[in-house]
Amino acid sequence: MSASVSPLAPKRFPKMPPVAGVRIATAEAGIKYKGRTDLMVMAFDPGTTVAGVFTRSKCPSAPVDFCRQNLGGGSARVLVVNSGNANAFTGMKGRETTRITGEAAAKAGDCKADEVFLASTGVIGEPLDAGRFAHLLDGLVRKAEGGGWAEAGKAIMTTDTYPKYATATVRLGDAEVTINGIAKGAGMIAPDMATMLSFVATDAAIAAPVLQDMLRKGVGRSFNAVTVDSDTSTSDTLLLFATGAAARRGAAKIDDPRDPRLAPFRRALNRILKNLALQVVRDGEGARKEIEISVTGAKSSRSAKRIALAIANSPLVKTAVAGEDANWGRVVMAVGKAGEPADRDLLSIFFGDIRVAHGGERDPGYSEAETSAYMKRDAIRIGVDLGLGSGKATVWTCDLTKEYVAINGDYRS
Amino acid sequence: MSASVSPLAPKRFPKMPPVAGVRIATAEAGIKYKGRTDLMVMAFDPGTTVAGVFTRSKCPSAPVDFCRQNLGGGSARVLVVNSGNANAFTGMKGRETTRITGEAAAKAGDCKADEVFLASTGVIGEPLDAGRFAHLLDGLVRKAEGGGWAEAGKAIMTTDTYPKYATATVRLGDAEVTINGIAKGAGMIAPDMATMLSFVATDAAIAAPVLQDMLRKGVGRSFNAVTVDSDTSTSDTLLLFATGAAARRGAAKIDDPRDPRLAPFRRALNRILKNLALQVVRDGEGARKEIEISVTGAKSSRSAKRIALAIANSPLVKTAVAGEDANWGRVVMAVGKAGEPADRDLLSIFFGDIRVAHGGERDPGYSEAETSAYMKRDAIRIGVDLGLGSGKATVWTCDLTKEYVAINGDYRS
Repeated sequence: MSASVSPLAPKRFPKMPPVAGVRIATAEAGIKYKGRTDLMVMAFDPGTTVAGVFTRSKCPSAPVDFCRQNLGGGSARVLVVNSGNANAFTGMKGRETTRITGEAAAKAGDCKADEVFLASTGVIGEPLDAGRFAHLLDGLVRKAEGGGWAEAGKAIMTTDTYPKYATATVRLGDAEVTINGIAKGAGMIAPDMATMLSFVATDAAIAAPVLQDMLRKGVGRSFNAVTVDSDTSTSDTLLLFATGAAARRGAAKIDDPRDPRLAPFRRALNRILKNLALQVVRDGEGARKEIEISVTGAKSSRSAKRIALAIANSPLVKTAVAGEDANWGRVVMAVGKAGEPADRDLLSIFFGDIRVAHGGERDPGYSEAETSAYMKRDAIRIGVDLGLGSGKATVWTCDLTKEYVAINGDYRS
Repeated sequence: MSASVSPLAPKRFPKMPPVAGVRIATAEAGIKYKGRTDLMVMAFDPGTTVAGVFTRSKCPSAPVDFCRQNLGGGSARVLVVNSGNANAFTGMKGRETTRITGEAAAKAGDCKADEVFLASTGVIGEPLDAGRFAHLLDGLVRKAEGGGWAEAGKAIMTTDTYPKYATATVRLGDAEVTINGIAKGAGMIAPDMATMLSFVATDAAIAAPVLQDMLRKGVGRSFNAVTVDSDTSTSDTLLLFATGAAARRGAAKIDDPRDPRLAPFRRALNRILKNLALQVVRDGEGARKEIEISVTGAKSSRSAKRIALAIANSPLVKTAVAGEDANWGRVVMAVGKAGEPADRDLLSIFFGDIRVAHGGERDPGYSEAETSAYMKRDAIRIGVDLGLGSGKATVWTCDLTKEYVAINGDYRS
């Protein structure tokens, strides 16, 4: 783990209330780290529904395979997360570990095997011995309590320099419900020691297909709109649990995604997902600046997002921001390389509210001094208008610093 | 320009013979640099044919547009190249500059306007004033001489730490012909100060469509198989000229791409293209190691190349090599993110001849000490066998070092 906390870390952490129907416990299993927790268990009340979104990697980890298989049942009772070892590219041994862990968790939670969900994060290719922690699950489920969100956020960290929390309370029918989320990054930055995991839980009563629909749509403008270094982890996992406990207090039971009572919940969920995703970017390894890239005027939203990601993943754009250099020529380069419809002579580029390029050339009113002053900020906004259509997209990333190279290049030495 | 020469630079430069029908001159036009040449003119004998391959950027520079337009004629008499300013994203002014330069070059070379070819490399978005050098063209064409390849290679440099040359002599029918090439990089590393330009000339007599066919096929395993930072320049230009002068000495005149007498020439051309492309990679900004990535066993060659490029462009793989870390988990990650058919459990990964992973997990015979020793070399080979089919591809890149970030991040400061 990094010695110093990211300068972009939140100034304060939110106080995480309990979520009715969710109990949490953590432990020091000593999987890799010493003197810190590395095992986290969430136990859910009977009737808890679940939705999930996973890495698009063609080489997913064993726990991702395990979760994908269980997601079909739509029901969750136990979540087990370990840090220190990703159980990725571990072959038959990896599958054996998820089987043993899953069985131990089902026994501990007194539930069916397909009501267990697993996530692992840490080194790739190193066998993860279930014997290190499977025997702890029974005790953890037993002692799990309604609080514990703060501890949960810490137990799942790897190269993160701070734990990531978000919470919201929102009306759903005749009662208020709570949504809590935790995440760990730091981006896809270091898949051998990090990955993107996020767990969100609510006491709302929402059917699994509705949860899945909301989550799938919600990630497009949150977790799937952030990038640190374009490197996709084998293990990215986002799970959303709904215990339904609030129904006893009068909260609406939702089983139709078009139910109008769901609108405030959906907005709150999307805010939480975006909040957590941005915390991941701000903890990107070596990050000193957050970069928001908005593309408008594209042929389609899909095209806009591809162009935005080409800019966000460009090492030259990211190093320029690190150097506080308003190098819009590199933005032109990145637009050009995206392979999407673009017309050089219709392009406008903005840094913050300053239009630096317009109509295929440098803006006549361009001021080097004004733009340079803007580049000194912590959060940089890059805007590109393609002038072709109405497609738009926004993505977030961080700058590329020498510290990134040091962390990822000097890691084993 | 960088102060120190890349440690991967060639130990010695080849002696470049003249190419009959090609005359060269250079000048200090003072476009941006002081105390060095920044303008290069090649004058070709009447009857010279030409082929070209250009950037795939959707925002190409004005000279790229200009060359593409003239390429249809298949005939070349004058090439004008400047360094210091890319004339890219310069709008109407940029087109005006290519028009003025083209007319001045045609007048100087006593040829048609569409027999002129232009290339510019340097800053993006800064208007390039043709008045700085158009008046020099007449004198340059007049004084151009048969030698001058060494000077030509230097005049086109931007952030390159060494000039790039390659030459070959090969039989074509009843006589020997010469092929000379020069290139500048340093990769697509710094499109605001660099780009990939290469100019190859021969005294062989080869029809333009045949040249174009050979060049198009030749770039797939050379210039289009190298990457420094995945950032595609607005200005990449590769031109191939054939003066036909050797026909007077008995060299065959070729107008059919299937002519069997062409085979040795084609092989020599491909060697030159690969040689120049590798010199560009070895001069990648901050590069300390060359990386060759070979993918075999893919569903198709196209699929193999996409996977190879995903590995080559992964910041995590490149920083691991910089840190001399045999981090094959990051190679698995990059295979997974490529989006191409891959089966984790059939994957084998090699560093040099050492198989580090096999059958979905770490190789049982893996030796950390042996692999770490291998990683200390200057040139690292990464092999991936997918075990799915017979598609294969090889690409080349360099490592990602703190020096890269320093060069590209601290550039303006």
